[in-house]
Amino acid sequence: MAANTFGELFRVTTFGESHGKAIGGIIDGCPAGIELDLDKVQEELNRRKPGQSAIVTQRKEPDTVEFQSGLFEGKTTGTPIGFAIYNTNQKSKDYSHIKDSYRPSHADYVYDKKYGFRDYRGGGRSSARETASRVVAGGIAKQMLSDIKINAFVSQVGDIVLHKHYSELDFSKIDSNPVRCPDAETAQAMEEYIKSIKKQGDTIGGVITGVAQNVPVGLGEPVFDKLHAKLGAAMLSINAVKGFEYGSGFAGVRMKGSEHNDAFNSDGTTKSNRSGGIQGGITNGMDIYFNVAFKPVATVLQSYETIDKEGNPVTTQGKGRHDPCVVPRAVPIVEAMLALVLADYTLLARTNKL
Amino acid sequence: MAANTFGELFRVTTFGESHGKAIGGIIDGCPAGIELDLDKVQEELNRRKPGQSAIVTQRKEPDTVEFQSGLFEGKTTGTPIGFAIYNTNQKSKDYSHIKDSYRPSHADYVYDKKYGFRDYRGGGRSSARETASRVVAGGIAKQMLSDIKINAFVSQVGDIVLHKHYSELDFSKIDSNPVRCPDAETAQAMEEYIKSIKKQGDTIGGVITGVAQNVPVGLGEPVFDKLHAKLGAAMLSINAVKGFEYGSGFAGVRMKGSEHNDAFNSDGTTKSNRSGGIQGGITNGMDIYFNVAFKPVATVLQSYETIDKEGNPVTTQGKGRHDPCVVPRAVPIVEAMLALVLADYTLLARTNKL
Amino acid sequence: MAANTFGELFRVTTFGESHGKAIGGIIDGCPAGIELDLDKVQEELNRRKPGQSAIVTQRKEPDTVEFQSGLFEGKTTGTPIGFAIYNTNQKSKDYSHIKDSYRPSHADYVYDKKYGFRDYRGGGRSSARETASRVVAGGIAKQMLSDIKINAFVSQVGDIVLHKHYSELDFSKIDSNPVRCPDAETAQAMEEYIKSIKKQGDTIGGVITGVAQNVPVGLGEPVFDKLHAKLGAAMLSINAVKGFEYGSGFAGVRMKGSEHNDAFNSDGTTKSNRSGGIQGGITNGMDIYFNVAFKPVATVLQSYETIDKEGNPVTTQGKGRHDPCVVPRAVPIVEAMLALVLADYTLLARTNKL
Amino acid sequence: MAANTFGELFRVTTFGESHGKAIGGIIDGCPAGIELDLDKVQEELNRRKPGQSAIVTQRKEPDTVEFQSGLFEGKTTGTPIGFAIYNTNQKSKDYSHIKDSYRPSHADYVYDKKYGFRDYRGGGRSSARETASRVVAGGIAKQMLSDIKINAFVSQVGDIVLHKHYSELDFSKIDSNPVRCPDAETAQAMEEYIKSIKKQGDTIGGVITGVAQNVPVGLGEPVFDKLHAKLGAAMLSINAVKGFEYGSGFAGVRMKGSEHNDAFNSDGTTKSNRSGGIQGGITNGMDIYFNVAFKPVATVLQSYETIDKEGNPVTTQGKGRHDPCVVPRAVPIVEAMLALVLADYTLLARTNKL
Repeated sequence: MAANTFGELFRVTTFGESHGKAIGGIIDGCPAGIELDLDKVQEELNRRKPGQSAIVTQRKEPDTVEFQSGLFEGKTTGTPIGFAIYNTNQKSKDYSHIKDSYRPSHADYVYDKKYGFRDYRGGGRSSARETASRVVAGGIAKQMLSDIKINAFVSQVGDIVLHKHYSELDFSKIDSNPVRCPDAETAQAMEEYIKSIKKQGDTIGGVITGVAQNVPVGLGEPVFDKLHAKLGAAMLSINAVKGFEYGSGFAGVRMKGSEHNDAFNSDGTTKSNRSGGIQGGITNGMDIYFNVAFKPVATVLQSYETIDKEGNPVTTQGKGRHDPCVVPRAVPIVEAMLALVLADYTLLARTNKL
Repeated sequence: MAANTFGELFRVTTFGESHGKAIGGIIDGCPAGIELDLDKVQEELNRRKPGQSAIVTQRKEPDTVEFQSGLFEGKTTGTPIGFAIYNTNQKSKDYSHIKDSYRPSHADYVYDKKYGFRDYRGGGRSSARETASRVVAGGIAKQMLSDIKINAFVSQVGDIVLHKHYSELDFSKIDSNPVRCPDAETAQAMEEYIKSIKKQGDTIGGVITGVAQNVPVGLGEPVFDKLHAKLGAAMLSINAVKGFEYGSGFAGVRMKGSEHNDAFNSDGTTKSNRSGGIQGGITNGMDIYFNVAFKPVATVLQSYETIDKEGNPVTTQGKGRHDPCVVPRAVPIVEAMLALVLADYTLLARTNKL
Repeated sequence: MAANTFGELFRVTTFGESHGKAIGGIIDGCPAGIELDLDKVQEELNRRKPGQSAIVTQRKEPDTVEFQSGLFEGKTTGTPIGFAIYNTNQKSKDYSHIKDSYRPSHADYVYDKKYGFRDYRGGGRSSARETASRVVAGGIAKQMLSDIKINAFVSQVGDIVLHKHYSELDFSKIDSNPVRCPDAETAQAMEEYIKSIKKQGDTIGGVITGVAQNVPVGLGEPVFDKLHAKLGAAMLSINAVKGFEYGSGFAGVRMKGSEHNDAFNSDGTTKSNRSGGIQGGITNGMDIYFNVAFKPVATVLQSYETIDKEGNPVTTQGKGRHDPCVVPRAVPIVEAMLALVLADYTLLARTNKL
Repeated sequence: MAANTFGELFRVTTFGESHGKAIGGIIDGCPAGIELDLDKVQEELNRRKPGQSAIVTQRKEPDTVEFQSGLFEGKTTGTPIGFAIYNTNQKSKDYSHIKDSYRPSHADYVYDKKYGFRDYRGGGRSSARETASRVVAGGIAKQMLSDIKINAFVSQVGDIVLHKHYSELDFSKIDSNPVRCPDAETAQAMEEYIKSIKKQGDTIGGVITGVAQNVPVGLGEPVFDKLHAKLGAAMLSINAVKGFEYGSGFAGVRMKGSEHNDAFNSDGTTKSNRSGGIQGGITNGMDIYFNVAFKPVATVLQSYETIDKEGNPVTTQGKGRHDPCVVPRAVPIVEAMLALVLADYTLLARTNKL
């Protein structure tokens, strides 16, 4: 059971707690001979880091990645790539108020029950800080998959929904605003809404849409390891995710087969793409697209009632520096997990035929 | 890469094509000492089998499972449980019309591209017939998890939505109608709708809701193997599934954190359960509940245009015996996959503490 | 933990007890497009089957393999290959004498302790009958690896040692005698010795040497999955095996580095081959060769003292139809495991470079 | 394929090259609640480190381990334990002579063929420096297995063989001499021999015997994952290992079954222990013991002929600081791998029964 490992051939194993010495990981199975631009990996990390705009947590974590192995003369060597991000801005005292009580809808209670105790500082291992390691690994996977275009963007914040189809959007605009919604008008509405939520000391949910383009035909496995099953697991493993749908998704339920089916063009492409680029678990060369639902962050900067370890009621005041909405910072995480899945299946697809 | 294996400790590996000699599987890691009621396993299989009502495919497959190992004197021995379901009603000639052409939104095209050729009879390995093996394995997992109550039911067919919360339903009524919706009124509407769709030679999508009750606290792993990530992968690996959400799901996106959080009772249970029984990837003892979206079956009994292997346009008439809506027969499959996930994590949870 | 699965990409999972309904397995990950000669697979099985000569067990088991999936029009399809060998000659009553007592140096005692009880008939899952499934899988792996020459032969029985280097032997003679030693003179001495041992109702150990020739450079992984580590595990997993050495093996211990090193020729081949075709865990294109030590079969047809389940001393008379020496029948098993390891690493090696 | 990961439930993944920034690893699956004595882990590392005596390499590497996660208030938390050993004494220039040529019986040639190029400095990933990470992980596994006594010692160097049975030895004397042979007289002969070999600029092989005592009954799996199969793989994965045998090993080949069988005492222990504590792949509670054969180190400080990348003959002078015999420093590595195997199977054994 590879609880802290993702992938079968292109694999990343991560370690680290929010307030420990470091977080990091090991990428194993990355093919030799990839010329890596390490600055690009750091840029991915910068897209995720705290403090980047007014609508995200104001913690100051530089999140600088240090690579420790697996590279030689600018290229991957085929051996494991170890990396670490040292923690530099932990204010563990901020968390003494949760040492003996359980925050609602956090993992505090279940960790204590499962393991007998927990590292309560900053959420310990349950902190989304762990996802920084995924972004590093995904940044390398992206460079391995140089032909595939991988993008994600915010398509919903609370009730504000981006109503354009992804094909109408200019993905180069994703990072042009702090929300990471490539439609300027919608982005502005989202930004203002997040600011108002923040003022209330509250939080709000959102949806990220992911798109992979120029994907080769034939990635994915027929039965349990259908590409979208692994993709779903990848997305659902991100903190705060509550749902995943691809192609026609939940809306497809309401359609008839005669409407839903994607008719073929003579070159094997399809006229519509309700399949979301995946048929029978295997890519057909059309765009892969999917939605990921994020709940509102559980930490609200309000007073709330909860229980302590003994089950006694306690009133607590939420404090610290937290995100009012996770989706802007989660965009690079969704892209990273998408890249990791595609890298893994790209290697696997090399073994299908004699 | 365990493409045809599901699970890490309680594991099932399946084999078999729609029109081959047999389908079946091997369950490995099942603990010793479980007194198995094999008739109950067969009953699960009967809930999935074709021909059981007027709204499902009229193929006649007895789907009788034969156990070949791993049992002794009525109990599991701890060694692998091999089983087979022999194919008896294949009409391979029914499929000669698809030998050289590709059915839209099926796996025909991608199999040919991935493997170089395919067993076209009945969809071969891409046929949902494979899921019978999952039902067998799940039937054993259910008996291992005798304390946990596992149920699934149809909550939507096309536009017909069951608007009751699962707690208002009587799960003993699930099998009281051919749709497997425990609300009689909604079930009847769904049944009539499916019949009308069938008359059109068309198909329709649906949603299945799964519920696990009386689950112990502490199942699940913090990072990549969060319980709901594996659960999502399990459901998304079922044929025709396009989406998965648990707890508040996609609707939770629109909520504020202060509304969404589940406040604690003094015994560690929670007053609400938007978390869906899982916090930080680990069960908290509350009910696990989730929705699974199924697209309309791709095989429509209508004339359609498609391409042959060379990309030439061909007009084909859909024929054979197919389901107008998969969700009634998919209920035991959803339950089986849910049981398999919980069995696996139950064993894993034994290794968490010294 | 894949206790009944071997391999990572080319994987076989087996099931079945000695006296159950069937034994068999599932081969997953076999590439599509291999034209399989199924008769050849059966021939491999015939080399392992009981009753083939006067020096092996006289049980009559036809050991006919039935393939149930994964093949279409004579070729592998890339989907799992299910197969079964039905048990036809079980004389379970032969084993009632061991139902309540523990045979020395068998697995009876540890099974009871580990699982709480056991299927005692014919040794249940601990019977070497399981290896028939390995021979089937290995027979397919061999056909995938058509360029590699895979051979094994008996090189020692008790104190009788074949003193020739493998390069002096004619591998086409391996099956020319019941011992499977390609040197006629040594084979005869071994055969006579086994017969005399059999007359005593006793058993004797032996060594099998395995050789793979025409192996490509680059199979194997640097650290934990060195080719010889997996090869060692493969051989040690065969019933009755007590040791494994490759290349210079235990004898290499006594050599100096200056003597032991394999000097290069200009084409990258080496003048000597004490490395056994593997350097740093990776094949260098030279012959792989290794020795596998088998202990004497534990079942002796003599009277012996042992204990029953309660620890009371009991005197038992060994009976039944058993091998006086396992190595003649174990030759195809060693070849099968060697083929499985090489097939797995052949697929993996496709993923090393960009 | 977990090439740089060892174990299934208690798992270690390692990274790092000889001359990179750091080596290290991640231990995943270690149960929560183990009170760790980190100084003891460092002591294990000190037993392996260079420069500890006159008969090992004179490199000066402090090999100080830094733990980065997974520990809280002195105990394991159940989350991954990340650790690093920073490289401080790399003299990469020492290796410019091998940049363009291949050292005989090293991995230089196969790395170039497999990956297209290699990090030639100090052997890169193929360096035995990687084993330091194993010692760290094994040191933690040992503390988890506090009831099991784990020891290894040198039992042969070249032709000098320790002729005493392990039961006659005082394991507390293992570290009392630089060879790590607990018999003073033999140790001295070995030490003098290694010194004479070193003077010749040559190297010599050796054997390490490993012993685990007070092992519970029931660890190990019946078929492919027999305890001794995994143990063999563990040992064979250590650099320079050419062979593994357990219990009666290769000598058992010459015995008759009637001599070899281990008769039971009334408490389930056995009068003899040729089984080496393992029957049918499962521990029976008797001592586990085994031998591991190490070849002579390939790097000799002599002039030798080899080839460059283009296949041209070149004459090279071996230089640098190398071990004349690896076994003294490999003792803690053997113990570490033994502990890792037992930790993994200890967790797995918790899942065998209902």
